[in-house]
Amino acid sequence: MRALGIDPGTGRCGFGIVDKEGNRITAVDYGIIETPKEMDLIERIHIVYQGVRELIQMYKPQVMGVETLYFNRNITTAISVAEARGVILLAGYHEKIPVYECTPLQVKQQVVGYGRAEKSQVIKMIMQMMHITKKISPDDAADALAIGITSIYRTEHEAIYGGIRG
Amino acid sequence: MRALGIDPGTGRCGFGIVDKEGNRITAVDYGIIETPKEMDLIERIHIVYQGVRELIQMYKPQVMGVETLYFNRNITTAISVAEARGVILLAGYHEKIPVYECTPLQVKQQVVGYGRAEKSQVIKMIMQMMHITKKISPDDAADALAIGITSIYRTEHEAIYGGIRG
Repeated sequence: MRALGIDPGTGRCGFGIVDKEGNRITAVDYGIIETPKEMDLIERIHIVYQGVRELIQMYKPQVMGVETLYFNRNITTAISVAEARGVILLAGYHEKIPVYECTPLQVKQQVVGYGRAEKSQVIKMIMQMMHITKKISPDDAADALAIGITSIYRTEHEAIYGGIRG
Repeated sequence: MRALGIDPGTGRCGFGIVDKEGNRITAVDYGIIETPKEMDLIERIHIVYQGVRELIQMYKPQVMGVETLYFNRNITTAISVAEARGVILLAGYHEKIPVYECTPLQVKQQVVGYGRAEKSQVIKMIMQMMHITKKISPDDAADALAIGITSIYRTEHEAIYGGIRG
């Protein structure tokens, strides 16, 4: 099974393509969709939307995982991330791919086994699981891989045990 | 000049089509794009996106005005409105229409002449300006008309005096 994990953002949107065959998990590709600050918000939003569609078309994942927003101290950041999230979900809809929304807690629980794990622990675990030796950079790409893994496991789990959303 | 004003929202998205000829302002149409709570977020977001595109195709406005978000007490609402805002801006981009973002303060200043005006004052003023006798309902539609008016005036002002964004 193949998943596209997305860590939403307007300036930096992390993506990760994850394959799972049996118990083996591989990172097929990962990186960020980046848009310049000086650019109009509308164009930046379009680049994110178009970028996600192109990733789906190129890698043909069976599921897309998108992280939900948690209450951020910085409301301006939260609003900007939510605007990106809107067009990312729409890109999934337009590419007719099932979208799995997961909370940061679920991602940490899935990857590290502990919902309050640090970001650095998540990255370390991702690198171990996928046998990546070179530090994944930026963090948004590592987060996206973690989200991709979570969406695969939860989709498989649901297929076997029924819905466990939320 | 014709404007489409949008008061963003996922559950209720207000719209208003406004014409201005000389000093005469008319409401061509107004209402809301409504999506049921039980529906998947992704489908709701798609309905908003599609609805805005159809309004642009149907009424062919020269500008679209979209309200920016102000810091809301309710962060969950703010995030949901921002997700809708993302796809509304994208709809404008895809329909190749200039988009004017205006703050609630600018809208109140334009319509009532006072940035801290009450919502009820805005609605009253809108009805007077456009000779509407029947109470505009819901409020989101009246807000959208106010946003449409603001985007027309500010676009005209910019055309004459140069950029005054923000």
